[in-house]
Amino acid sequence: MTTTPRTRLSPEQRREQLLDLGVRLLAHRSLDELSIDLLAEEAGISRGLLYHYFGSKQAFHEAVVRHAADDLIAQTTPPTDGEPLVRLMTSLTAYVDYVVANHEGYVSLVRAAAGGNESLRAIYEDARSSLNSRAFREDLRGEVVADTPANRLVVRAWSAMAEDAVLTWIDDPHGMTQEDLIGFLVASLPAVIAVTPEG
Amino acid sequence: MTTTPRTRLSPEQRREQLLDLGVRLLAHRSLDELSIDLLAEEAGISRGLLYHYFGSKQAFHEAVVRHAADDLIAQTTPPTDGEPLVRLMTSLTAYVDYVVANHEGYVSLVRAAAGGNESLRAIYEDARSSLNSRAFREDLRGEVVADTPANRLVVRAWSAMAEDAVLTWIDDPHGMTQEDLIGFLVASLPAVIAVTPEG
Repeated sequence: MTTTPRTRLSPEQRREQLLDLGVRLLAHRSLDELSIDLLAEEAGISRGLLYHYFGSKQAFHEAVVRHAADDLIAQTTPPTDGEPLVRLMTSLTAYVDYVVANHEGYVSLVRAAAGGNESLRAIYEDARSSLNSRAFREDLRGEVVADTPANRLVVRAWSAMAEDAVLTWIDDPHGMTQEDLIGFLVASLPAVIAVTPEG
Repeated sequence: MTTTPRTRLSPEQRREQLLDLGVRLLAHRSLDELSIDLLAEEAGISRGLLYHYFGSKQAFHEAVVRHAADDLIAQTTPPTDGEPLVRLMTSLTAYVDYVVANHEGYVSLVRAAAGGNESLRAIYEDARSSLNSRAFREDLRGEVVADTPANRLVVRAWSAMAEDAVLTWIDDPHGMTQEDLIGFLVASLPAVIAVTPEG
């Protein structure tokens, strides 16, 4: 069942629209469940046209995941004004909201990246690196996190802790409210930086 | 090329010996590279006999990984005497030594578990749970970590941080000595517990 879009879009706009749809479909599905057939059905266009836009299932998955990662980075952008820890809290609140709203897709990305799909791993690592490097532009308790190699390692490891905490909390809140969880995430970054050796 | 063992071992002893060999072979190999053929060659016995002992490649991998996890748990057992943070340091030093010595096998287990192999994931989670529950039997700065749900979530997340820190450090030390790394791991546990909400 092929329908013609009512508005004429450029190929770039059409591809963008299909990626937005792919990201929405991924929110509550694993990558394995996100097929070209499903996207074709939901978009009301032919599989052939989707292959024209994306080339292959793997290329389609990469494009959707990259789009989702860009959304995550955009949605968690800290405000430019305000107290450093309040800005960090705003950003981490958006992160928790994102993972809650896109749980299935997020978990399947983490699994695909960790499980050795090299191109998805590269997209995941790029996004993580973009998120983490924000720490070095933020003031924490009045001090910028010094951009040392040791602090880079620790911020990266802290983000693994944050991700594990959020995913565990979604499965079982362990008696913590969302506010408790975010408070922990915010406070734990300066706490671990404080015990990092000079490097 | 089948050879007969010089000492007559019981089937249980023989299986144990084969698992020890499997664990040694896994240290510098991924699970994908650890085949029944390789074990047969290294053990000097027939593939048929290995299938008799283990049933299938998947069952063989599970047995080897369970054996490796038991080794990790045994090797990182904290001493029963001494200052709490010294005991924690002894245990974490053994953990870092283990991951350094078994890097390829350890990474491939983490990837297999994270990548969705459910039986390997269960073994990994069991081992992690055994390691983490030690925190609740240790005194830190004179106080036992209270066994609350929130602290359970945080200790689990802290162990994800520790694992990420060690694996990143092995790839690139980021200017940190092994002593620096272990110092960070030891100090970060009470640091994150200190900012955990009562739960």
